[in-house]
Amino acid sequence: MSARFYCSEIGGQTAQLDDAESHHALHVLRLPVGDKVELFDGTGATACATIAEVTRKTISLTVSEHHPGTPLQRPQLVVAAAPPRGDRFKAMVEKLTELGVDEFIPLRTVRSVVDPRQSKLDKLQSTVIGAMKQSGRNRLMTIHESMEFSVVLRQAATKKRSIQIAHPGEASAGSMTSVTADTVLLIGPEGGFTREEVLQATDYSARRIVWPDSILRIETAAVAFAGLLLNQMHRSV
Amino acid sequence: MSARFYCSEIGGQTAQLDDAESHHALHVLRLPVGDKVELFDGTGATACATIAEVTRKTISLTVSEHHPGTPLQRPQLVVAAAPPRGDRFKAMVEKLTELGVDEFIPLRTVRSVVDPRQSKLDKLQSTVIGAMKQSGRNRLMTIHESMEFSVVLRQAATKKRSIQIAHPGEASAGSMTSVTADTVLLIGPEGGFTREEVLQATDYSARRIVWPDSILRIETAAVAFAGLLLNQMHRSV
Repeated sequence: MSARFYCSEIGGQTAQLDDAESHHALHVLRLPVGDKVELFDGTGATACATIAEVTRKTISLTVSEHHPGTPLQRPQLVVAAAPPRGDRFKAMVEKLTELGVDEFIPLRTVRSVVDPRQSKLDKLQSTVIGAMKQSGRNRLMTIHESMEFSVVLRQAATKKRSIQIAHPGEASAGSMTSVTADTVLLIGPEGGFTREEVLQATDYSARRIVWPDSILRIETAAVAFAGLLLNQMHRSV
Repeated sequence: MSARFYCSEIGGQTAQLDDAESHHALHVLRLPVGDKVELFDGTGATACATIAEVTRKTISLTVSEHHPGTPLQRPQLVVAAAPPRGDRFKAMVEKLTELGVDEFIPLRTVRSVVDPRQSKLDKLQSTVIGAMKQSGRNRLMTIHESMEFSVVLRQAATKKRSIQIAHPGEASAGSMTSVTADTVLLIGPEGGFTREEVLQATDYSARRIVWPDSILRIETAAVAFAGLLLNQMHRSV
């Protein structure tokens, strides 16, 4: 696999890498003029390109082949999770990107303690791009601004997405048997969702998903349940 | 949930916490004499106990109720993974414990770069215990010494465990549809298993499991695939 770089504009005959990607190419991988690389724009499209010119901070490329990418062959998965503290948040975003989650919403709930600032979310964007480069994915996981629990529920209903809520107790019948629609997966904070929040989600026909005999940490639940849902989605097409 | 502590001997009328657990109770949670706690011995058994006496470094407890624990109701899952670097190894062990993996083997393969020393594995034992306390699990995930790939295959065959190998490419037909036997999940190092290793595993009737469109990091693959397999195992009983 050639080195891969994120580049928002890959449709023309030339392309420029942004500062972060140029730095990675020049000062981490030390790629010289003439090297062939792969570019991805986050929509699924890719391009083959050759390094044409470098300065100390910038890279210009000649684009030789465009690949539009195939449309997504499965339903979409949105993970809305109360952000865990510190590095666990970053690790969670990295892993959800690798698995192929389509969108991430930092969820504000009654018991939430972390409400990430925009600067933090901007930093996570580079975590997403790093994970895409490493894993060979071509579609960006979109990171939204943090959102109230009730707003996430309403939006899911408007967009006709089904809802799965991770909460200890009895699972809804058949909750993991078929996932054929776009889905929002709700993951609560440390201490979990309140009873009222669970009832509110139930009003939106949310199905409950449960991990047997264990209270999972936020990021463990997000990765394990996203894995189960994506696996079901891949198998349903 | 009362505070939970690991204690290897909980069968008598009194119990003592070891140094690490005493420290947690005394200096982190600051529990006083008279507080009720829960003890687990890692076999599935638990006990209710009351703090009877404390010194600066030790805690003695009076045990009031013993619960032998129910036998495991599903097949066992052993994860044999090439250890990732640094904190990713610790995070992986934590998450596999939360999910309920039964045994972990640090796997030595052709492309492995990390071969953890015994002192490192001993430290991971405290990560396991921490994850058990937090998640409410009562069964210890056993951490083995690091083992050669070929030895893991031979042992799996001797113990009549089925083998699943995570490797990009085509999945074996029906590889995730039924998991009714004790299973060893093999996760390769950065750079993956060699062709020879995959062929060697195939000789032992290993099934291949694949994540679509992505090359997962070691710890992401371990957590996502262990999640899928455990979910299948729970559903097969």
